Amino acid sequence: MGVLIKNGTVVNADQRFEADVYCEAGKILAIGKDLSLPEGAELIDATGQFVMPGGIDPHTHMQLPFMGTVASEDFYTGTAAGLAGGTTMIIDFVIPSPQQPLMEAYHIWREWAAKSAADYSFHVAVTWWDDSVYEDMGTLVKEEGVNSFKHFMAYKNAIMANDETMVNSFNRCLELGAMPTVHAENGELVYHLQQKLLAAGLTGPEAHPLSRPTEVEGEAANRAIRIAQSLGVPLYLVHVSCKEAVDEIARARHEGQRVYGECLAGHLELDDSVYQHPDWAFAAAHVMSPPFRPKGHQEVLWKALQGGTLQTTATDHCCFCEPQKAAGKDDFSKIPNGTAGIEDRLMVLWDSGVNTGRLTESEFVAVTSTNTAKIFNLYPQKGHIAVGSDADIVVWDPNKHHTLSAKTHHQNIDFNIFEGRTVLGAPSHTISQGKIVYKLGELFAEQGAGRYIKRPAFPVIFDAVEKQNFNKQPKAVNR
Amino acid sequence: MGVLIKNGTVVNADQRFEADVYCEAGKILAIGKDLSLPEGAELIDATGQFVMPGGIDPHTHMQLPFMGTVASEDFYTGTAAGLAGGTTMIIDFVIPSPQQPLMEAYHIWREWAAKSAADYSFHVAVTWWDDSVYEDMGTLVKEEGVNSFKHFMAYKNAIMANDETMVNSFNRCLELGAMPTVHAENGELVYHLQQKLLAAGLTGPEAHPLSRPTEVEGEAANRAIRIAQSLGVPLYLVHVSCKEAVDEIARARHEGQRVYGECLAGHLELDDSVYQHPDWAFAAAHVMSPPFRPKGHQEVLWKALQGGTLQTTATDHCCFCEPQKAAGKDDFSKIPNGTAGIEDRLMVLWDSGVNTGRLTESEFVAVTSTNTAKIFNLYPQKGHIAVGSDADIVVWDPNKHHTLSAKTHHQNIDFNIFEGRTVLGAPSHTISQGKIVYKLGELFAEQGAGRYIKRPAFPVIFDAVEKQNFNKQPKAVNR
Amino acid sequence: MGVLIKNGTVVNADQRFEADVYCEAGKILAIGKDLSLPEGAELIDATGQFVMPGGIDPHTHMQLPFMGTVASEDFYTGTAAGLAGGTTMIIDFVIPSPQQPLMEAYHIWREWAAKSAADYSFHVAVTWWDDSVYEDMGTLVKEEGVNSFKHFMAYKNAIMANDETMVNSFNRCLELGAMPTVHAENGELVYHLQQKLLAAGLTGPEAHPLSRPTEVEGEAANRAIRIAQSLGVPLYLVHVSCKEAVDEIARARHEGQRVYGECLAGHLELDDSVYQHPDWAFAAAHVMSPPFRPKGHQEVLWKALQGGTLQTTATDHCCFCEPQKAAGKDDFSKIPNGTAGIEDRLMVLWDSGVNTGRLTESEFVAVTSTNTAKIFNLYPQKGHIAVGSDADIVVWDPNKHHTLSAKTHHQNIDFNIFEGRTVLGAPSHTISQGKIVYKLGELFAEQGAGRYIKRPAFPVIFDAVEKQNFNKQPKAVNR
Amino acid sequence: MGVLIKNGTVVNADQRFEADVYCEAGKILAIGKDLSLPEGAELIDATGQFVMPGGIDPHTHMQLPFMGTVASEDFYTGTAAGLAGGTTMIIDFVIPSPQQPLMEAYHIWREWAAKSAADYSFHVAVTWWDDSVYEDMGTLVKEEGVNSFKHFMAYKNAIMANDETMVNSFNRCLELGAMPTVHAENGELVYHLQQKLLAAGLTGPEAHPLSRPTEVEGEAANRAIRIAQSLGVPLYLVHVSCKEAVDEIARARHEGQRVYGECLAGHLELDDSVYQHPDWAFAAAHVMSPPFRPKGHQEVLWKALQGGTLQTTATDHCCFCEPQKAAGKDDFSKIPNGTAGIEDRLMVLWDSGVNTGRLTESEFVAVTSTNTAKIFNLYPQKGHIAVGSDADIVVWDPNKHHTLSAKTHHQNIDFNIFEGRTVLGAPSHTISQGKIVYKLGELFAEQGAGRYIKRPAFPVIFDAVEKQNFNKQPKAVNR
Repeated sequence: MGVLIKNGTVVNADQRFEADVYCEAGKILAIGKDLSLPEGAELIDATGQFVMPGGIDPHTHMQLPFMGTVASEDFYTGTAAGLAGGTTMIIDFVIPSPQQPLMEAYHIWREWAAKSAADYSFHVAVTWWDDSVYEDMGTLVKEEGVNSFKHFMAYKNAIMANDETMVNSFNRCLELGAMPTVHAENGELVYHLQQKLLAAGLTGPEAHPLSRPTEVEGEAANRAIRIAQSLGVPLYLVHVSCKEAVDEIARARHEGQRVYGECLAGHLELDDSVYQHPDWAFAAAHVMSPPFRPKGHQEVLWKALQGGTLQTTATDHCCFCEPQKAAGKDDFSKIPNGTAGIEDRLMVLWDSGVNTGRLTESEFVAVTSTNTAKIFNLYPQKGHIAVGSDADIVVWDPNKHHTLSAKTHHQNIDFNIFEGRTVLGAPSHTISQGKIVYKLGELFAEQGAGRYIKRPAFPVIFDAVEKQNFNKQPKAVNR
Repeated sequence: MGVLIKNGTVVNADQRFEADVYCEAGKILAIGKDLSLPEGAELIDATGQFVMPGGIDPHTHMQLPFMGTVASEDFYTGTAAGLAGGTTMIIDFVIPSPQQPLMEAYHIWREWAAKSAADYSFHVAVTWWDDSVYEDMGTLVKEEGVNSFKHFMAYKNAIMANDETMVNSFNRCLELGAMPTVHAENGELVYHLQQKLLAAGLTGPEAHPLSRPTEVEGEAANRAIRIAQSLGVPLYLVHVSCKEAVDEIARARHEGQRVYGECLAGHLELDDSVYQHPDWAFAAAHVMSPPFRPKGHQEVLWKALQGGTLQTTATDHCCFCEPQKAAGKDDFSKIPNGTAGIEDRLMVLWDSGVNTGRLTESEFVAVTSTNTAKIFNLYPQKGHIAVGSDADIVVWDPNKHHTLSAKTHHQNIDFNIFEGRTVLGAPSHTISQGKIVYKLGELFAEQGAGRYIKRPAFPVIFDAVEKQNFNKQPKAVNR
Repeated sequence: MGVLIKNGTVVNADQRFEADVYCEAGKILAIGKDLSLPEGAELIDATGQFVMPGGIDPHTHMQLPFMGTVASEDFYTGTAAGLAGGTTMIIDFVIPSPQQPLMEAYHIWREWAAKSAADYSFHVAVTWWDDSVYEDMGTLVKEEGVNSFKHFMAYKNAIMANDETMVNSFNRCLELGAMPTVHAENGELVYHLQQKLLAAGLTGPEAHPLSRPTEVEGEAANRAIRIAQSLGVPLYLVHVSCKEAVDEIARARHEGQRVYGECLAGHLELDDSVYQHPDWAFAAAHVMSPPFRPKGHQEVLWKALQGGTLQTTATDHCCFCEPQKAAGKDDFSKIPNGTAGIEDRLMVLWDSGVNTGRLTESEFVAVTSTNTAKIFNLYPQKGHIAVGSDADIVVWDPNKHHTLSAKTHHQNIDFNIFEGRTVLGAPSHTISQGKIVYKLGELFAEQGAGRYIKRPAFPVIFDAVEKQNFNKQPKAVNR
Repeated sequence: MGVLIKNGTVVNADQRFEADVYCEAGKILAIGKDLSLPEGAELIDATGQFVMPGGIDPHTHMQLPFMGTVASEDFYTGTAAGLAGGTTMIIDFVIPSPQQPLMEAYHIWREWAAKSAADYSFHVAVTWWDDSVYEDMGTLVKEEGVNSFKHFMAYKNAIMANDETMVNSFNRCLELGAMPTVHAENGELVYHLQQKLLAAGLTGPEAHPLSRPTEVEGEAANRAIRIAQSLGVPLYLVHVSCKEAVDEIARARHEGQRVYGECLAGHLELDDSVYQHPDWAFAAAHVMSPPFRPKGHQEVLWKALQGGTLQTTATDHCCFCEPQKAAGKDDFSKIPNGTAGIEDRLMVLWDSGVNTGRLTESEFVAVTSTNTAKIFNLYPQKGHIAVGSDADIVVWDPNKHHTLSAKTHHQNIDFNIFEGRTVLGAPSHTISQGKIVYKLGELFAEQGAGRYIKRPAFPVIFDAVEKQNFNKQPKAVNR
């Protein structure tokens, strides 16, 4: 049974144009003027609305076991909430414990994710190193469709990758045609500052941002970029949150390095005053890493999105409810790190991005969907409204007001960092795999409907990277 | 009669894929696998080749009256040479003399251009200011399909626009939804340095680059950008040639300003050692403005193209033969400024860009065609291989060697700044308006076949710009 | 009659040390431990206090005729107020009207200044150009001890110097060994924005900063720097007020250019919220150019002082009382531009600079006195506590609280932009030409006691500049 | 017995002036015009010459045991060679092996250094961490006059300090009022690149620079700076050799951080083409770390010296003769790292710095002597021509030509990296502790005449640093 979207304005990353879009069997089958409604097909009247690729969230942590608890949002509830907000695919993370075989962790996560309501894929974290990790990375890329690996530069004594691990893993990525990604914070400094703050009697959430100042992120961002540079590997930085890191990415890109950056809806909008809130639970609900930043950094991130230094937006969706956050009541460093947002991201981005003129509609599509699809080699299957692409679509009503709130959101968490904000512009319909899954406030997400999406290795930029590395090969002097 | 391109790899700015392409009646009619050859259609076997949007050269000066002579290349010979090199459209310049009505100049140029073999359009220069200029800009935009105006910040006592003219014209551009563009060199300084060098007895072409050092371009680039910033207008800088100007553009883009930059094939490849050549004619043949730059700037330009600070490439194709150049035999400041390149640009860009891994094939298409089409609102009619787009196509053989030379080129000039260079990668066929106009060394350009292409005002970024300006509107304090 | 300062800590720009200082006949005669008190000499007990070179204010406008009125502070009252605040010398400005001979203006200002209570000198403005200006510059340097010339890039239709004038004058400065200085704001843009704001009905002081946004200063700063660069001339920028200008100076200095920057106490401390004040007179009292800047720029200036990008501090002391400011009641562009501060500068700088750890005591001396003396070739006569130097000294009590206020200040103006601020650290005594002129709240300034100080041309950096220019001299190619 | 220097021009960092200088008992006793020659005093006629503070070399490694051998230059020969070149003091390094007690190493080095011909002091390296290191740092500062500690970020599996050690040691430095210093190269990357190059069959000296590309230094420089920033500690970077590191220092200084940088005469003058030399011994003789850099970086260093981003110059004087270098015949990573220069530094700096106009004479003194004295709290005992300062003086003949060569130099090494270069400007006399030790080509260095110079902790900038840290102290939220 097909779906015909009539009278809307299609917005792709490269252009916008008026056309009808017809979906069937999970794909976009036709795009054109005045398409007629096939028998049995559903009709969506998109007059005055935009028809855009569904959002892709490249950074979520559904049901993550972390800091002694497990994220409250599972793969079903989380992807369902995403659909309600116009996001039709996620890339989540497999995070092996140190010494845990990568394949073992991978299979566990695959099992957890089977209940997803929307399509999904996985980055796999490299948290330690030996020959088996080297081998498993190969298996994951060649057999399992993984084309990106994550490295935590923070979380000392837990999942932190040291420089030796990073060097080995980045090199392996290059061999495999996979993208290395990093969480850029210097874990050694964070650990030191945490101890110092606790010793000084600062145990509340207001100490959290002080233990991870922006220079700690700037350092790690630069280190990862320099390692990538000296090895000739591309690099993707997750949740870039501050000027210091943006500047490093900008510099690298100016020097011709293929470096990409992601930022979060939360970091674009909130500042660190949230940690000064007199209510402990309110402050703790905002504890995530990197933390929300001093005023000023938000505008830097916006400018970086506009100017092309950052390419993607995400949420780092990782939900812990108040009772879970309470684990850190006497020690901020034990508050489970994470905030929600998968449902809110597109609305917040549109309202603060498109309504203000910071972004055109096409640029909005680029930073919420298309660029992620390109970088992680899903394009044009995902991230594009074109004949033959997956029918993952959001129909966007630019005149709809919507109030973001924990009371009404579909996210399985008792808090919303955008609580009470009324945005202009929201999804009227979401289509996943060619089916209407969200319609004017009603959600029809189906548990287990989501598919694991393999992402092929060697996206096109690796051709260029390899040519460049070849041209730089050292030569011996004849003596 | 149609043309079917079989078995090639289509390269667009956003992706590449294997498909056949069928053109008819000037348009691309079908793209797909295993298209069958319609009766009477011509077949091009593109096995192992790339099928790309034809190049657009946004900066040419055919048959320009300049510095007491007229460019040797006319609209026919110039566009024909372009076709031989895979370039299927140009944007040339109407340049009114000070006090000359814009419409008068416009009509003269339109007449000259009627003989073009390929599609063309015009930027119009604003070299002076009064109310009639204001009016004529409106007429040009609303009735004649002009959506960009040029401002020369150099050429004092001739066509130089002073700050007052620039401010007025930029403001008018904003009203009209047209893009202001600038030639960024501080004409006052150039004039001063010319006099000083001549007074010191430096009369040869080696004095030319000394009279226009990079800081002179950096200054003007910054000035134009700042003026655009304070007025809330987008801006396009032509022939960016040096680090100083690149840095200004990068800064502005990082701060969220909509600023675009173009660079020339010549500036990417050559350095200022050409002016030290013992042969006066050789040195003089390279006299253009801005001049070729000291070693090091070339790599900066390449990096800027890679990193997105510059978006387009052009040639500033403006041909003067040796006898014309000789007008400046005793005074370098009288050597007619200009070099050729419309035929060579794509080959040079491919060889130095794609073969080295600096650019992917898609990025090559972006910087030689698509980005220009987008910025000047020709997309997706031009700059894209898609059903419904103009059938302006180059079939590119990446294994073909070609030697660039004045002896063999189609350009109507006795010199080639890339003389003797053998590149790898060259057009096998060029298709203009759906017709094969170049095929394996044979050129079938037809005088007058080119059409004047109107470019609509208000490309999509103006929506965003207007929203931003609206949000910045000043408010009075109630007292 | 001498003065002996006992038991203090001498602070120079290069070091601090404990020593007594003995002054006689206008000079410092001895520095050492346990100096004995000569007969008839006065004693100052400086226990727990700092003995520092008196402040030099390189930017004042006493009794300036400007915008239809005359500054309320004359050379006597202004220099006296300076002495009360520890400032023992000023460099004021001779500002010829367009077409007025420089020598004529110079003599008028010399006459006005004869009543000064402290030593003084003059920069001379170049507001227009012809051969007589060229000649007069020579006379001023060679016969009158002027070694710096000022260029206003703002104030269109009044004293604005256009690029041609600047190029000519900068060149002449180089010949003469004099320092060109600029007020960096693009007057063309200011004029345009003023008209636009007035046309939009914004007539109040809140429109003043909007008519001169930071990009307008950034543009002019860069232009002046680039002109200086292409001519091989050093440059000094007065009242640098914003990040945009600081960045340009920093860049130039990194590239080896000899560029210097000054900032004002007011710009370091106040932001543009003052223009939003509901009281018109309060807002208008802050109208000066460049205006106070949005929050954030202040910290940039402080960092630039700390890091060495800016070298000097000043006040641009130019007093207009409320009735004078009222001239712009209906049109902000007619409000006489200027604020006071000569008495407050050192206290504000100490409190915000030294007490916070931004500056060491030596760095304080450098930026309030020594660097100015060096740049304008007064060192070590001025700006240094050393045997043989002029006995212009401030004895500074770091434990003294002082409240800045129009009610108590000696400045001849009815407003204080630091009104009500209590600082820690203030002069206990000021010594001018070896005499105690301020002592624990009592001021003994004497009208006419100040001397005109000649400043020799060719400060030492000109040696270096000339060598560099010589090494860059162009050479002709032999053909 | 005194020494009177007549008729010279005294050059200090802040000014130059004509005066005679009289030295006695190791100190400068008088400075003035027309000083008369005391009985028995020696006379130096310095007509047409400059009288400057003797050079201080803050970075030497005399008789260092390193990479399986011992540097050929011992404390006597090395300091003597320094005197021949106008350098009158060194700061060498105590380098404990991992696990070796700091005090033990310190005493060994003190014993070695007893034979020095000129004054000397020591930085002490922190190569590992435990409580004893913490204690010993205290002893060194409080009892032994050490006020700086060195951290090698390179040399993995040997003396490399990891982040944890650096964080601990930097913090300890802050407590003690001592300056942390770093050798900034990422040892993990160097190790990885070495293995990769060797595996690829590149075993010659040409592989040395490839194993330590500039990004490896840029990374480490940034990391050290960021660690210092987050801890609130000042920082000094030794042998800054490339644009990447300079840019990091410049950025930090612009942001108000107290960061200092040193560069070497060799890095200012030579580029990495030396490693391409067909003669293995020639290439190997240049192996040091960081290596000489690609063309272009030299000019960046010069500009950084001019603009104040770098403050000091040194040599990293560490001599290995050809038979020692031969240890790496088959494996470049085994070539003992080091080059000479203590005798050549001042001449090279003068010739390339002062003769070209890059530096004034005063700036030359600043970067060769005064700034080092200030940063390491030796000023004004060292680094200044003033009454009461140590009589360490070089009398400089700006008209003397001198050819640098291993054949004639006093350095105990068979190679000179400046071989054959003729400079203009050289010492005519060197005075150490008030005695003439070098005179017109004759060297009178005396073994053991040098004294160990204690350097007090808490140089003046620590006051400012402590105020800043105090102001940034975190505060708990009352809940």
